[in-house]
This record gives sequence, C-alpha cells and structure tokens, in this order.
Amino acid sequence: MTAVQPDVRTLLSPGDPAAIEQLVRDTGFFSTDEIAIARELADDGLANGPASHYRFVIAEQDGALLGYTCFGPIPGTRSGWDLYWIAVRRAAQRRHLGRALLEITELAVQAAGGTRLYAETSSRAQYEPTRAFYLCRGYTVAAQLPDFYGPGDDKLVYSKLIG
Amino acid sequence: MTAVQPDVRTLLSPGDPAAIEQLVRDTGFFSTDEIAIARELADDGLANGPASHYRFVIAEQDGALLGYTCFGPIPGTRSGWDLYWIAVRRAAQRRHLGRALLEITELAVQAAGGTRLYAETSSRAQYEPTRAFYLCRGYTVAAQLPDFYGPGDDKLVYSKLIG
Repeated sequence: MTAVQPDVRTLLSPGDPAAIEQLVRDTGFFSTDEIAIARELADDGLANGPASHYRFVIAEQDGALLGYTCFGPIPGTRSGWDLYWIAVRRAAQRRHLGRALLEITELAVQAAGGTRLYAETSSRAQYEPTRAFYLCRGYTVAAQLPDFYGPGDDKLVYSKLIG
Repeated sequence: MTAVQPDVRTLLSPGDPAAIEQLVRDTGFFSTDEIAIARELADDGLANGPASHYRFVIAEQDGALLGYTCFGPIPGTRSGWDLYWIAVRRAAQRRHLGRALLEITELAVQAAGGTRLYAETSSRAQYEPTRAFYLCRGYTVAAQLPDFYGPGDDKLVYSKLIG
C-alpha cells in the first residue's frame, strides 16, 4: 500500500452521486433506506451546486472515490451544522482518511461561520467504532433518544464546538 | 363566537401553501427562516401529494385556514414520526383547536404504523405555552440540546408513544 495523499475537493462532479451510492453500499453498514438518502443528498448537491443545502468533502485517488462527508447548516439555528454523512472505503480506513475528512469538514464549517457540529449515530454494537471515533475527535454526547431507530436502538447525538 | 366545528382534511389544495405561510407569519411566533421552511414543506406536499414525505392535517372554517399540522415518518427509523409543524390561528386557540389537531395527527400517525411521535421546541420563555401544551398532551422530554438554536436557546425534544 502506498502512502499517496488523496485529492480533496468540495464541489461535486456528475459521477459523484453514483460513486457515493456505491461507496455507501459497499461499506455494508447502511440500510437500503439510508443508501437511498445518501444518494438523494448527493443528487441535490450536484443539481443545485453551491445553492444546495448540502455541502460535501470528497476524497479520491486516481479518480476513484475513497470517502466523503456531507454536511450543512441547520435551518432555524444561529450557527449549528449537521454532519449528515461520513463514509470511507474500507481499504482507506486504516489510513485515517475518516479523521482527515472530518477535520477538513470542521474547517469548512468554521469558515462558513458555523460554531457547532452535530453528528448522530446509533447505540447498536455495530456502531461502537463510530462512537469511539467521535469521542476521540473531541465530540461529546449531547443527547440520547431511547428506541429512536427501533426497539433497543437509541439515537446518540454527538456535538463539538468548532473554532 | 359560534361553536361551529371546523372542517378537517388531510389532502392539500392549491391555495394551502400561501394560506399556511400567512397563518405561520400571523402567529408572530416564527422567524423568517422558519416561515420559509413552513412554506417549502407545504409546497412539497401540494406538488407530490400522497408521495410527499410530508403529511398534513388542515382545519378550516368557511374556507379560511384555522390551523394545521405537518408531520412525516423519520427516515431510517422503524416507526418514528416527526411533528414538523403545528400552528393555530390566534382566534382559534381558545377553542382548543391545537389539541384537536394534535389528536387527529396522532391518529393518522398510528394508522400509518407509527409508534412514536417527536416534537421539537425551544427553551426560550416565548415557548413556555408550547412546552406546557406538549406536557399536557402526554409528551415527555426525550432530550435537551444546550445552545442548539443559539446561545442560551436549547432545543427540547418531546416524544410520545402512540397507540
């Protein structure tokens, strides 16, 4: 495995929505519903560009998508932002691409005037690495909603002050 | 004041989005951003009908909108629903129209297989009647997110088991 640095960009290209859908599906982590949502947000981002509610950080290498984040300002809040998606191709996870993507996302949020970033995840055992990742990156649990996703499957809301 | 019962329907008519925007504005309760969101959801509901993510309960009398709710299933959850909007014309508030609208909404959620309804509101003093309303209708505080809307302005998430 080489240590070549991936390319990063924030504007979507026409091939991105399909590549994002494929990447999200390939992680084996997300439900059919969730995959459809990931695709829908990417379609919106491509169609509406900078006017879209959804912003993106795309990491690729030799034209292949390695990972991405999708995020945006929370309507009705002064400076709260939501991290809607963060997904990294399995092979790139060992290279700390998730950490790099999250850091770039936080800088983008800060540059846009955001002061707080929220990330939601599930209490299920499958998401233990995700929860550890957020805690490690300085996020704290702002709320826990019992049985939100389903019986015994709570929603955890992580939050981090930015800037 | 007569005791005439308002008419209730769940399908939007072409005049509803503008009437909803006007009603939400007239309450004096919501920001420009929030008014725009209320309009956007109504436009979506009218354009997409039963295929829209957003469902509505409309209460009117002699063709004039008295109040409404907007709600929908939460993607990625088994049976969680969000109450996005509940707004009642000031003159109709004394007639417990809010309570009736919420009850009809809960029945609609239950009929669609929903088991839990969430409603979010602010911790600001202005929303004390709203918070009392949810508590009185059997909702409990599932989460409180500090400074969510802005400094000193928390988000309260109310939830109620349906059915």
